[in-house]
Amino acid sequence: MSTKPVSLQTLQRLPTYLHYLKSLPKEGNSYISATMLAEALNLNDVQVRKDLSQISSGGKPKIGYNLANLIIDLEQYLGYNKTDSAIIVGAGNLGKALLTYGGFAEYGLEIVAAFDADENLIGTHINGKEIFPLDRLAQICERLNVKIGIITVPAPYAQSVCDQLTSCGICAIWNFAPAHLTVPLNVLVQNENMAASLAILTKHLSSKINSEEK
Amino acid sequence: MSTKPVSLQTLQRLPTYLHYLKSLPKEGNSYISATMLAEALNLNDVQVRKDLSQISSGGKPKIGYNLANLIIDLEQYLGYNKTDSAIIVGAGNLGKALLTYGGFAEYGLEIVAAFDADENLIGTHINGKEIFPLDRLAQICERLNVKIGIITVPAPYAQSVCDQLTSCGICAIWNFAPAHLTVPLNVLVQNENMAASLAILTKHLSSKINSEEK
Repeated sequence: MSTKPVSLQTLQRLPTYLHYLKSLPKEGNSYISATMLAEALNLNDVQVRKDLSQISSGGKPKIGYNLANLIIDLEQYLGYNKTDSAIIVGAGNLGKALLTYGGFAEYGLEIVAAFDADENLIGTHINGKEIFPLDRLAQICERLNVKIGIITVPAPYAQSVCDQLTSCGICAIWNFAPAHLTVPLNVLVQNENMAASLAILTKHLSSKINSEEK
Repeated sequence: MSTKPVSLQTLQRLPTYLHYLKSLPKEGNSYISATMLAEALNLNDVQVRKDLSQISSGGKPKIGYNLANLIIDLEQYLGYNKTDSAIIVGAGNLGKALLTYGGFAEYGLEIVAAFDADENLIGTHINGKEIFPLDRLAQICERLNVKIGIITVPAPYAQSVCDQLTSCGICAIWNFAPAHLTVPLNVLVQNENMAASLAILTKHLSSKINSEEK
């Protein structure tokens, strides 16, 4: 499995390539060029060529990549062929939605347990996953070798939960709380700030509507 | 309501400020300074001062902002005090999760209907919202004055759905499909690429693990 580092921008494009390639019919022309891929996805073909050359050595001049092999190379590079365990802290609306969402398996992620401070939720199950109290965090992370923590608590509690996660050995945090998190150097935080996204969308709308009314 | 344009970075921070301010106790000191806010959220205080000055005129030297008034100013600026209607296209796992998620109302967003190509889903309801066939899109968007479209279809269908949305007058698109979308100049696309986020998280993990094994 290739472990060469690629840029963050390249890494973010790789799942898009993989999704498109997997959507193509299995029969017919089993080769695809960077140019064809770039056209299909409205991307720059120089960029796509460079991205693919970094994660696969199968490209042939004037022919391109064997489709099946390129899919395997992308899946291996992205780690979709193995599964990482994650836990989720915060079993409110968003936490429930993520626990119920069945689509993470194809990305190599399995949410194995949930945690919440609400005593009424503890011991209940969502989509077959038990909700534990926060004081079981260290024990369960160690037992199940969990390295990814998903934070879906309200913003004021996010930093405290983040500190608990990193002290339990979690080194990758997917943060859905609209809060800035401070972490040790070796820990990565990926922010999924839906409130910020919504602010951008609705502000675009109101600016448009206001300028139209003038 | 202020409609002064702010930078995208400022706009993305405003919901974080608002969340924190709303979490503070209502009694006690009802003033907050940019410095206190910056410290609480681990942000640069010059940046926070500048952000707040753009959306509220209530700041007093050496005292700060009246808490209740600042909350009102932020809610008005972000449009949380009015509700925008949105429709969702794609009633699969992720679409269902978003339809079921009860947290959008506080951000001024209401998902009013869902659409899907799957005939088995059409006519059914998720969380009280009916699922319609795609050929009803134009009619329903016009009737309910919908301006926001949420795309949760598989990547290969995303551009086609996007084209249908913009032709129906949708001018803000929240795209959860891992696909690059091409839109007319007046339309804004906000990408929520969970596959890209997961790639970053798991890659960080595998790089770490590999370097530890060496």
